[in-house]
Amino acid sequence: MSQEELNSLRAIWLARRDQPIPTVAEARRNFEIFMAAMPIAADIEFQEIHIGDRAAAWLTPPGASLSRTLLFFHGGGFVIGNHKTHRGLAGDLAKAAGTRALSIDYRLAPEHPFPAALDDCLAAYRWLLEQGVSADSIVLAGDSAGGNLVISCLAALRDSGAPLPRGACLFSPWVDLALAGDSFESKAAADPRMTRQVLQIYQDAYLAGRDAQTPLASPLYARLGGLPPFLIQVGSDELLLDDATRLATRAAHAGVKVRLDVWPAMVHVWQAYAPMLSEGRQAIEEAGRFLADLLVR
Amino acid sequence: MSQEELNSLRAIWLARRDQPIPTVAEARRNFEIFMAAMPIAADIEFQEIHIGDRAAAWLTPPGASLSRTLLFFHGGGFVIGNHKTHRGLAGDLAKAAGTRALSIDYRLAPEHPFPAALDDCLAAYRWLLEQGVSADSIVLAGDSAGGNLVISCLAALRDSGAPLPRGACLFSPWVDLALAGDSFESKAAADPRMTRQVLQIYQDAYLAGRDAQTPLASPLYARLGGLPPFLIQVGSDELLLDDATRLATRAAHAGVKVRLDVWPAMVHVWQAYAPMLSEGRQAIEEAGRFLADLLVR
Repeated sequence: MSQEELNSLRAIWLARRDQPIPTVAEARRNFEIFMAAMPIAADIEFQEIHIGDRAAAWLTPPGASLSRTLLFFHGGGFVIGNHKTHRGLAGDLAKAAGTRALSIDYRLAPEHPFPAALDDCLAAYRWLLEQGVSADSIVLAGDSAGGNLVISCLAALRDSGAPLPRGACLFSPWVDLALAGDSFESKAAADPRMTRQVLQIYQDAYLAGRDAQTPLASPLYARLGGLPPFLIQVGSDELLLDDATRLATRAAHAGVKVRLDVWPAMVHVWQAYAPMLSEGRQAIEEAGRFLADLLVR
Repeated sequence: MSQEELNSLRAIWLARRDQPIPTVAEARRNFEIFMAAMPIAADIEFQEIHIGDRAAAWLTPPGASLSRTLLFFHGGGFVIGNHKTHRGLAGDLAKAAGTRALSIDYRLAPEHPFPAALDDCLAAYRWLLEQGVSADSIVLAGDSAGGNLVISCLAALRDSGAPLPRGACLFSPWVDLALAGDSFESKAAADPRMTRQVLQIYQDAYLAGRDAQTPLASPLYARLGGLPPFLIQVGSDELLLDDATRLATRAAHAGVKVRLDVWPAMVHVWQAYAPMLSEGRQAIEEAGRFLADLLVR
């Protein structure tokens, strides 16, 4: 029963939300423990590699086309998470898209503020091209801060004249570090996972004093014209709902082929809970189909 | 070549846009002539009927499931158009959705201002129920003013406690008769089909002195909570772009399962030009799949 699944998850999140704010080290460890509790599809091969001095992982579902690559940027507010915490989400999405995935362990704030994470994401994309992977066999995806990195990466690649990937998929993207969406007010009670307080800590860590509207740190403010098609999935019960609606609106005005899917009663990156949440599985299936359709064109 | 198709259509629209504003009678006749020039799929059966004293048409594609019904509300600013002008669009969408369609000839303004058109749409839905058609075998669709009527119809049905259809599809909906979208400025040069002047004539005719934010006349201002899922397709080169983005945003806040698809460089209700525009055919295919997916649930 999906509603039961969701209720039990809400209870876990609400309990966590009320706890004192942990240190960065505690938050990273807690997140690793929490995400490690999630069952992982046993048939997806996990192979750790290095790109330069950063870790990364190839995730290869059975029957995946090795000539199609999903480059995945994990979420975690630029402060927590890695290629292992999001092993399940990246692998599930690759399986649904019929691709292999490359999930990267970009540098985290506060030790490495903006643009370190973005630089590592761009380096991973360029590394793929250097390996002979053609840009039009690549799609990008990311959740939360990873969705931010996807859009910033696309904008930076466009500006540099690099060949662009086919398109992208964003799960609950955090694209406005100025925290200016109306949903910060209207969804404060509805969102069981996120608080403005925690996002402000992440914001401070990543920006390290920079303006919150710096375009490649807050790609809501970046020029979006010329970006390839992308899908945004967002839950209606999110502080970050208007990061999604505003990104879709700005992309629409810029003439980008954008699709916004709003999922009622869903919460921040519910797709990561696919093993216990049927809407998570459905959303990943739809996102996978979206990416697969881009890759056959 | 899609770009050639689009360029030839743009030339036709721009020439029409520069002509003097016609009388209502002329506008209706011109629209009928223009739409009659569009080739129609020969295999879709057209059967005219009456619902009360209003005309309507059953459109039956080959192999359509007679147990699934698309109720279609045509566009034309509440002033022009009928079940015959939109025969092609309604039939193509029914074919793509695997349903039959009922397209209705609601009363037009200025002779019959708000809420005459809405009343006729609601009467058609209730008539279907009276014929023994179950609500959960029905989906709604409409273009432009027809998209307005779809959302107003759903809100009125919800308020009356009537059983709701499975969902809906809107092509370039006109949901704000206050003409308040930013795209009225930013897309004025890009939109080859629409002008604020023409929309103001339609607005005056339909409102007949009522407030432009009357919820069921401008459903952007209606309460949207409790509405079934709907898809919005809109072109990026439309004055009405922000009718779509704002409707999606309001629906998202209300917890509705909404999907917004923005099509770059497309113009107001480009789906109606499917016979000469490949993006029109693709959009109808996607809309049909969306509706078909709702009906199998």
